[in-house]
Amino acid sequence: MVGLMAPFTIELDFKRGVLHPCNNIIQRHLSDMRGTYLDEAATEEAIEGGDPLLYEVYQYDVPFENGQLLVVTSIIQPGKVGDEYYMTKGHFHEKEETAEVYVGLRGRGYLLLETRGGEFKALPVEPGTVTYIPPYWAHRMVNTGQEEFIFFGVYPADAGHNYGEIEVRGFSKVVVERDGQPTLVPNPKREER
Amino acid sequence: MVGLMAPFTIELDFKRGVLHPCNNIIQRHLSDMRGTYLDEAATEEAIEGGDPLLYEVYQYDVPFENGQLLVVTSIIQPGKVGDEYYMTKGHFHEKEETAEVYVGLRGRGYLLLETRGGEFKALPVEPGTVTYIPPYWAHRMVNTGQEEFIFFGVYPADAGHNYGEIEVRGFSKVVVERDGQPTLVPNPKREER
Repeated sequence: MVGLMAPFTIELDFKRGVLHPCNNIIQRHLSDMRGTYLDEAATEEAIEGGDPLLYEVYQYDVPFENGQLLVVTSIIQPGKVGDEYYMTKGHFHEKEETAEVYVGLRGRGYLLLETRGGEFKALPVEPGTVTYIPPYWAHRMVNTGQEEFIFFGVYPADAGHNYGEIEVRGFSKVVVERDGQPTLVPNPKREER
Repeated sequence: MVGLMAPFTIELDFKRGVLHPCNNIIQRHLSDMRGTYLDEAATEEAIEGGDPLLYEVYQYDVPFENGQLLVVTSIIQPGKVGDEYYMTKGHFHEKEETAEVYVGLRGRGYLLLETRGGEFKALPVEPGTVTYIPPYWAHRMVNTGQEEFIFFGVYPADAGHNYGEIEVRGFSKVVVERDGQPTLVPNPKREER
């Protein structure tokens, strides 16, 4: 048996959400997510006003093979575009029969889930909440709190990401602030159809 | 698309290591691990003296299918059998090309790893240590601290467990107390061969 991969450790900072070492760090600014938020005027204004960092992802890449696992943390900043809370891009897995596990570490928010058949779920996440995203469910995290929303995740390394569909259609509900409270309302983009 | 699995949440208690709800709780007493510890007289004496609980595993079972993931926590009590620290049974995965991820939550210990080719590694684990167990590595956790050693894990649901080989041969090193300190020493069972 030659060429086996060596075991390794990564330090996870539970407070800051950072993985160290880490070989794949992604930063998403609002300009990376044009068209995602409903309020296009607020989107452009915020991009011109400094293009805020919405979230960071620390992923430890290993070979993208069946049986391997990807370790990931995400840090979503608090804030809104218009009245819509900061959130991740959201995606289906390319290999749709793959699950994903998230663990809330800090802050709070919602995990939005949706199937192609139109089933929708929103699960509240706080520190200690383990969420199980079964195969075939698109998923997106939303920070509805006043501080960073930080979570840890593990998913199969051959899962892949399909962002395109969610970019176009979004989820059937959006999370907006109403009377100071996070509220799920129907996505008007969907109702147009 | 009919019969999709529903998303769900589990509460993880970072301090106690308990998953709630949980559909698969395993308790291992010393009598479940006869032959694992080197000191057979100390093993029998401790079993007669009350058969101590060595560790508990909380696993949330989902269908054991490729793409699904198992969420698990383990709580190893502090203690020794003879001069050997409490530890898990240790296993290869049946589907050997599957990895596993552990995250230390509380207490401290070692992750022992070994390949069939005889490569051995011992990685220290403390709260925040993420350990990556690559495909083909047998693994065992050892509590070398004064308190419960608690860790969270995720692994592919089709991985399976092969305990038999480790029960017979152990790992090439054992973790024993020498002058009050955890120390790795060669496994005499292996040297007999």
